[in-house]
Amino acid sequence: MKQLKRTTIADALKSVETGKEINVKGWVRTRRGNKNVSFVALNDGTTINNIQIVIDIALFGEEFLKPITTGSCINVNGILVESQGQGQSVEIQAKEIQIYGTADPATYPLQKKGHSLEFLREIAYLRPRTNTFGAIFRIRHHMAYAIHKYFNDRGFYYFHTPIITASDAEGAGSMFEVTTLDMNSVPKTEEGKIDFSQDFFGRQTNLTVSGQLEGELGAMALGAIYTFGPTFRAENSNTPRHLAEFWMIEPEVAFNDNTDNMNLAEDFLKYLIRYALDNCMEDIEFLSKMYDNELIDRLNFVVNNNFVRLTYTEGVKILEESGQKFEFPVYWGADLQSEHERYLVEKHFKCPVILTDYPKEIKSFYMKQNDDGKTVRAMDVLFPKIGEIIGGSEREENYDKLLKRVNEIGMHIDPIWWYLEIRKFGTAPHAGFGLGFERLMLFVTGMTNIRDVIPFPRTPNNADF
Amino acid sequence: MKQLKRTTIADALKSVETGKEINVKGWVRTRRGNKNVSFVALNDGTTINNIQIVIDIALFGEEFLKPITTGSCINVNGILVESQGQGQSVEIQAKEIQIYGTADPATYPLQKKGHSLEFLREIAYLRPRTNTFGAIFRIRHHMAYAIHKYFNDRGFYYFHTPIITASDAEGAGSMFEVTTLDMNSVPKTEEGKIDFSQDFFGRQTNLTVSGQLEGELGAMALGAIYTFGPTFRAENSNTPRHLAEFWMIEPEVAFNDNTDNMNLAEDFLKYLIRYALDNCMEDIEFLSKMYDNELIDRLNFVVNNNFVRLTYTEGVKILEESGQKFEFPVYWGADLQSEHERYLVEKHFKCPVILTDYPKEIKSFYMKQNDDGKTVRAMDVLFPKIGEIIGGSEREENYDKLLKRVNEIGMHIDPIWWYLEIRKFGTAPHAGFGLGFERLMLFVTGMTNIRDVIPFPRTPNNADF
Repeated sequence: MKQLKRTTIADALKSVETGKEINVKGWVRTRRGNKNVSFVALNDGTTINNIQIVIDIALFGEEFLKPITTGSCINVNGILVESQGQGQSVEIQAKEIQIYGTADPATYPLQKKGHSLEFLREIAYLRPRTNTFGAIFRIRHHMAYAIHKYFNDRGFYYFHTPIITASDAEGAGSMFEVTTLDMNSVPKTEEGKIDFSQDFFGRQTNLTVSGQLEGELGAMALGAIYTFGPTFRAENSNTPRHLAEFWMIEPEVAFNDNTDNMNLAEDFLKYLIRYALDNCMEDIEFLSKMYDNELIDRLNFVVNNNFVRLTYTEGVKILEESGQKFEFPVYWGADLQSEHERYLVEKHFKCPVILTDYPKEIKSFYMKQNDDGKTVRAMDVLFPKIGEIIGGSEREENYDKLLKRVNEIGMHIDPIWWYLEIRKFGTAPHAGFGLGFERLMLFVTGMTNIRDVIPFPRTPNNADF
Repeated sequence: MKQLKRTTIADALKSVETGKEINVKGWVRTRRGNKNVSFVALNDGTTINNIQIVIDIALFGEEFLKPITTGSCINVNGILVESQGQGQSVEIQAKEIQIYGTADPATYPLQKKGHSLEFLREIAYLRPRTNTFGAIFRIRHHMAYAIHKYFNDRGFYYFHTPIITASDAEGAGSMFEVTTLDMNSVPKTEEGKIDFSQDFFGRQTNLTVSGQLEGELGAMALGAIYTFGPTFRAENSNTPRHLAEFWMIEPEVAFNDNTDNMNLAEDFLKYLIRYALDNCMEDIEFLSKMYDNELIDRLNFVVNNNFVRLTYTEGVKILEESGQKFEFPVYWGADLQSEHERYLVEKHFKCPVILTDYPKEIKSFYMKQNDDGKTVRAMDVLFPKIGEIIGGSEREENYDKLLKRVNEIGMHIDPIWWYLEIRKFGTAPHAGFGLGFERLMLFVTGMTNIRDVIPFPRTPNNADF
């Protein structure tokens, strides 16, 4: 077979050099035709669109072509010609074909017909070959890249915070333990406790639930940093909104107050969604057509409107006076549920909302305390369909106030002494937030189950692949 | 105090708008002067250079200025003026000063004098405020960004492979276990084995040692992918070259053979080093001056020269005939040690080297088997001072050959059935490699201990911060 440099199908479909012989490689999506000619829809992952390969059966012989079935992988030299059919401008008239790999129609799990998302989750090792998951994972790439580009262009430094940690950023439970101890016979101390001195790190360690605390150390030296890494929650939540392993973006900026923080969050989200509209339109259009025909309108709406900003106290008042029946009661001090957040966003304001100044009891120990003694300088960004997409705050930079709060809620100081210490040496106002990457992905793709926007979801009883 | 928009010190130092009042914020590196005037060197992390704040003591009073010591954080309004002193073109004449946070000279660990890298490792929560670590972590950001940019510009998709996994990519031991079982009383089955059905994932799980196997699934659908995430080794190695938690970049490309793979690796490394020279020169110059005066020459040399390519067999022959005394003996079949790799690179070729076609016994099960029955289509890139910086291969895409190899070495099929399965459905040639991000960082910064190029190193008995 003649050696030609491979052309991606994305490039081939945009090419105007008809009459030229090119090489494409890819996976067969469908093959149809008649006794004389076969039409193969070929995809190589570079675009949601297939290129049509027109095969003169007499040229290759039926026997040779037989293994070219859905899922097989082929290498094709052929002439790029204007397409006779509808829907695409060019196609390829095959001159030489090499079959790289077959896919027995009796056993190949991805036949032509549509499969349920549930079924595709079970074959996550193959689902990136479908139109839906090809589109989703291409968008996932573009969103990740946009995140890095946004921060890089604005002088933020990407700061790698540790995955294995002895601290607990949220002061919450539900962490995975990391160990090299022999679980068949866990070593014990004389007092009968687990002897962590024999563990790899000489102490008990967990998977991080957030890089924020270490991120603050970075910001208090480099000025503006962001993290983008995996985080973990061992909550036994089997819902379409929870993953045990997910990716989080956490910018942290020295000298920012909570208003700067809100401005950053709003600008950041709009940038990302605009980037998706500018760079992923074919994939978004496909997902919109298949799953959610309001998707594109929703994305445009967020880009083009200011987010409404109000305090938690004002938000609760609106909810109390709404006359709306909620599953969970609303009152000042209640942790807002998704139904409340979505009421404010979808029914009341019909617009993304930023709620600020939450009661300190329902927020983390590190948030800056307001002078009222009751609230903290938090801000949550609430989105249609999603609820909370970003949570953040100005941080308490005063050593005494922070220490008092830590003691009030009975936290151990030992694992976070360094976090307190940084308030002793050149402390300064600073603020930051966390964006759940998969929450963003749900919003941008219109998918409704978080397991469908990450390649290999980790959930209770599922660590396949 | 007048509200002015903050100017970063990087921008202020480049500004030509002398006579204008600007606002800067940052940490005091030093303060010196006489009875009438104080000179503060201020840094905000945006550049390795400090800006000089000139303070008329009479204007503020000695008492007010007293807490402005090394490590304190201040907020300054002042007039940008041409500098009287040497080394910088502009300085700021302070008009208003706010002290954000003090740093008691009696307890602040980072005094003016130089500290050892060993000492700074112990205070990793503060070391980003030093010149050295500011430079290193800025370079780390730029290298991470360059990696994403390189792949994005070339149509690769960033593909998130799982961190918690039930497979073992290398077929090696030394993994961290991840569990939610109560280690005080580990549940047992009737046969006395650990009852992993009660664990979070219903099975035994570990931290990933590589995203390659799942990355191949992505490449065999999306065409070209890369991973960039944390990986883990529970090896009890207390050396300047080993971390328990480190970041790895693993591109994987459908239809690439091992020559394409080598071309990609060489082009990628040269791009990254050129990017560092183009974007991080001030920081690199500082590190070169402080730690390694051959650094810049070495970086330029790699960018400007072709890597030498030869087979493992040829490499071993050169080593055997070298007359050189090595600590570890060299013979065909031996796993090359750093001393051997560095001899080839630094003494023999005086150039980066790519070794190919290693004995199958010393390489992983998934590498494509050569027809000689003895070697596999591996390629390792060897760098001066570092040894192996990249390891990769063409992958065995033939189901029967791969299964045979898996059985030969006694691997369990159960955790990687899906990896084998992908060879049944549309298999194709493909290749990829892994770049240890911290190895790259060592090369680009000239540092010699891997604990100094990651913000919070994880090593035996150390999971601090």
